[in-house]
Amino acid sequence: MTTKIVLAGPRGRMGSEAIRMIKNEPSFELIACIDRINNGKKLNEVKEAATLEVPIYEDPVCCFEENEVDVFLDLTIPKVGYEHTKIALERKIKSVVGTSGFTETQIAELNEISDANGVGCILAPNFAIGAILMMQFAQKAAKYFKNVEIIEKHHDQKLDAPSGTAMKTIEMIQEVRESFKQGHPEEYETVEGSRGGEIDGLHVHSVRLPGLVAHQEVIFGGPGQTLTISHDSINRESFMDGIRFSIEHVLTINKFIYGLENIINHQ
Amino acid sequence: MTTKIVLAGPRGRMGSEAIRMIKNEPSFELIACIDRINNGKKLNEVKEAATLEVPIYEDPVCCFEENEVDVFLDLTIPKVGYEHTKIALERKIKSVVGTSGFTETQIAELNEISDANGVGCILAPNFAIGAILMMQFAQKAAKYFKNVEIIEKHHDQKLDAPSGTAMKTIEMIQEVRESFKQGHPEEYETVEGSRGGEIDGLHVHSVRLPGLVAHQEVIFGGPGQTLTISHDSINRESFMDGIRFSIEHVLTINKFIYGLENIINHQ
Amino acid sequence: MTTKIVLAGPRGRMGSEAIRMIKNEPSFELIACIDRINNGKKLNEVKEAATLEVPIYEDPVCCFEENEVDVFLDLTIPKVGYEHTKIALERKIKSVVGTSGFTETQIAELNEISDANGVGCILAPNFAIGAILMMQFAQKAAKYFKNVEIIEKHHDQKLDAPSGTAMKTIEMIQEVRESFKQGHPEEYETVEGSRGGEIDGLHVHSVRLPGLVAHQEVIFGGPGQTLTISHDSINRESFMDGIRFSIEHVLTINKFIYGLENIINHQ
Amino acid sequence: MTTKIVLAGPRGRMGSEAIRMIKNEPSFELIACIDRINNGKKLNEVKEAATLEVPIYEDPVCCFEENEVDVFLDLTIPKVGYEHTKIALERKIKSVVGTSGFTETQIAELNEISDANGVGCILAPNFAIGAILMMQFAQKAAKYFKNVEIIEKHHDQKLDAPSGTAMKTIEMIQEVRESFKQGHPEEYETVEGSRGGEIDGLHVHSVRLPGLVAHQEVIFGGPGQTLTISHDSINRESFMDGIRFSIEHVLTINKFIYGLENIINHQ
Repeated sequence: MTTKIVLAGPRGRMGSEAIRMIKNEPSFELIACIDRINNGKKLNEVKEAATLEVPIYEDPVCCFEENEVDVFLDLTIPKVGYEHTKIALERKIKSVVGTSGFTETQIAELNEISDANGVGCILAPNFAIGAILMMQFAQKAAKYFKNVEIIEKHHDQKLDAPSGTAMKTIEMIQEVRESFKQGHPEEYETVEGSRGGEIDGLHVHSVRLPGLVAHQEVIFGGPGQTLTISHDSINRESFMDGIRFSIEHVLTINKFIYGLENIINHQ
Repeated sequence: MTTKIVLAGPRGRMGSEAIRMIKNEPSFELIACIDRINNGKKLNEVKEAATLEVPIYEDPVCCFEENEVDVFLDLTIPKVGYEHTKIALERKIKSVVGTSGFTETQIAELNEISDANGVGCILAPNFAIGAILMMQFAQKAAKYFKNVEIIEKHHDQKLDAPSGTAMKTIEMIQEVRESFKQGHPEEYETVEGSRGGEIDGLHVHSVRLPGLVAHQEVIFGGPGQTLTISHDSINRESFMDGIRFSIEHVLTINKFIYGLENIINHQ
Repeated sequence: MTTKIVLAGPRGRMGSEAIRMIKNEPSFELIACIDRINNGKKLNEVKEAATLEVPIYEDPVCCFEENEVDVFLDLTIPKVGYEHTKIALERKIKSVVGTSGFTETQIAELNEISDANGVGCILAPNFAIGAILMMQFAQKAAKYFKNVEIIEKHHDQKLDAPSGTAMKTIEMIQEVRESFKQGHPEEYETVEGSRGGEIDGLHVHSVRLPGLVAHQEVIFGGPGQTLTISHDSINRESFMDGIRFSIEHVLTINKFIYGLENIINHQ
Repeated sequence: MTTKIVLAGPRGRMGSEAIRMIKNEPSFELIACIDRINNGKKLNEVKEAATLEVPIYEDPVCCFEENEVDVFLDLTIPKVGYEHTKIALERKIKSVVGTSGFTETQIAELNEISDANGVGCILAPNFAIGAILMMQFAQKAAKYFKNVEIIEKHHDQKLDAPSGTAMKTIEMIQEVRESFKQGHPEEYETVEGSRGGEIDGLHVHSVRLPGLVAHQEVIFGGPGQTLTISHDSINRESFMDGIRFSIEHVLTINKFIYGLENIINHQ
């Protein structure tokens, strides 16, 4: 059985990736797009790469009335995305929202509409499923290995160190790991900083080089062995697996979920 | 509170590592050893490296009667280990058994004694906790990434390829992943075998070089990202974290468990 | 002292990267562009991202006459690039040509003009300096380690395996390494192909996964140690370091050089 | 043609490895050992693992007189090694000396005797050929990539950071790289030390974990690409390739050489 999808935001970078992803997934079918321009045209008339004869609607109400929709996918901007999703949920159309930048009030309102109508909705600011798995695995491994160091590597235009993902990983590890000073008690640096940043005795190292994008290794060490969990992300396409999974998952739920981490490995 | 431990097999390679591990773990205390020779001596009289004044017993019964034991740890050989463990369990002493090579009958008997007495016992042929976590994480990740390849690397004296761990990892991935032919449908090899071994469309590569010991990488790929789970093992010490964890865990159970994978991440 | 550069092909993908590279290199200055359209305009009028007031010429002769040029950089297409470079060399302007697809006759002619005029010219179909260094280092290491395996990893849309770079690396290793059957003499595969492709006893493994771009590891193993040389390329920008180096190097030569590998580590 | 070798120090850890290496190298033959005990016995009588009927001499003079020796290999201690090597060189026997801890005076004297007699001698405190290649390659690559970071990883019993090898690598890179502040000019740390140690704008990171031995990665980054040179050492066996190479190389020289780096890639 095919999942019939309506996409809002087909011209954006994320939307373009999503069109490709839906096309490559045999169980998905793109049946319509919502776009503030190009009303009445077909997708292949307005997008060079598209080969799909998919109708474009300016009016979401009209789109949802004329089509039988399984899942609505919004990849637009908060203002528009909020309106679209509200309309979809009120029509009991399950929704996946990858638009980031919603206010807390907007999130609360969508949550309410979703729950009131008993219609599944997944809203996530970050769909990089690999990064979420890396953090979850790191937390699990930390129960068994108390020695862990993190090396995160990013392009040299990044201003802050350590990265947000590294800090979030450390927080998740801290939830299960007692504070413990790693390394030899008498270790010393001949070059200051070489042992990296230290949080609760755990060390974190930030590499910045041109040619890198966004990478992280979490290395656990025990006598005679190391266990390493690494995530490498090279572009926005990295969100597509998370969106694909959310489309499949939203079909099975009838409530509101915020954050991909709350459906990954939570069965 | 300290966990009082009796160790059988202090002179073996595993036993030596265990003595070191127990010494380094503040919450553990080695209170006696069982050894078929050296009865009545202290551990520091018979082991060069040992600094501990720990009495050695030839007779396990005598050892268990004269001491208040929290956990009995057996790292001997099947024949002796079976006897020791039986005696310990009958005295309601929780046991961790790292001896490998038991017959199925022996395992079944120890299981029965353990359950009948309601006394916790963990018997495991493999205590490499990192390898078990790698396999469990790989299985979890396979739910979200259908594209995966395995690279396992071993020393060049290994006869069989792929390794047993690689095959077990693939089996665990197969439990959650539908058969799926990876790579481009029209891909071709100009050098036969370069795309590796194929099982259900999943590829496995075996590297053999001097200077390697036992290593495995499981690489999951999705658009724009890869997630890699690696385990590197350099010697027998790699069993110590699993033994440490089992000693802690056996205190909390009152039944028989076979295989470390059944207590790792099963809370 | 600043190197004054004229760039042909400013609107292409490579040209755009080159403009950025020149801007970031304090010793380089972009003084003019050659482009078949936009004659008489400034670069910042026709390129959104450009902030440089650089004049654009349709006629290369005119461009070379009106400016004092240190190095001419061509990143166009063979037909046009051949004409440009010929004109530059005849005016004794040192040239770096990154345009690929020249015929052997064209290359021979440019070689002749360059040598006849005693003016330096570097023509290279591949400016990925990191890949060239990887191959050169691999060749050097192969003199000391006879055990080597190659793992190359590419995106899953690649048709052929092993990659061209892997095959070229193997050729370069073969020049210094005697044929030698690696691994245990009695090793066997339980899954066919798992030991990879074999050339002269050396094994090569091709991984294909979405999320990868172009990666290669050359692993040398000897007792107790491994030496690994890896190259990771994520996009066309990877040619910029080679172009930058060639611009610096062409200033020091007065002959024709084909292929970056002939100036890297050949001092 | 076989190279006939006399080994001094067959009972030590290095000596044991050397016996195995010589046995596995078809062009090498162990013809005698020098040992301060076990005079007159055969090697297989005193070493459990040895299968070789090789005579043992207490007196080096006697050993050198009774045998036709191609290369003398000393793996003892400075005092004894100095005497052995002096006697060998005076008898014009080419020598490879892996004994570490010689005084500068001793080295100067052996140098003099070697040169005076026109007999090849290679003395090296470190035979880890992979580490030397890594440093040489890093120096070469630094000419083309000015952005570089070093990650060195060691077991958690190591006291100093960064490691000696990392510091030596940095020195070698500094010889060819102008001081240059890497990373974004406005980068900042939210956790102090996370960007690692800094020398001339180059960053170095020291990881310390149980389960590691001695590892180093030198990562060069340029637009769109990274080049990584890694060395992993797991035990003393890592010296064997360097000793093997030195035995082969000493046959071709008639002077004194100190340090393996002076014969690697110096042809």
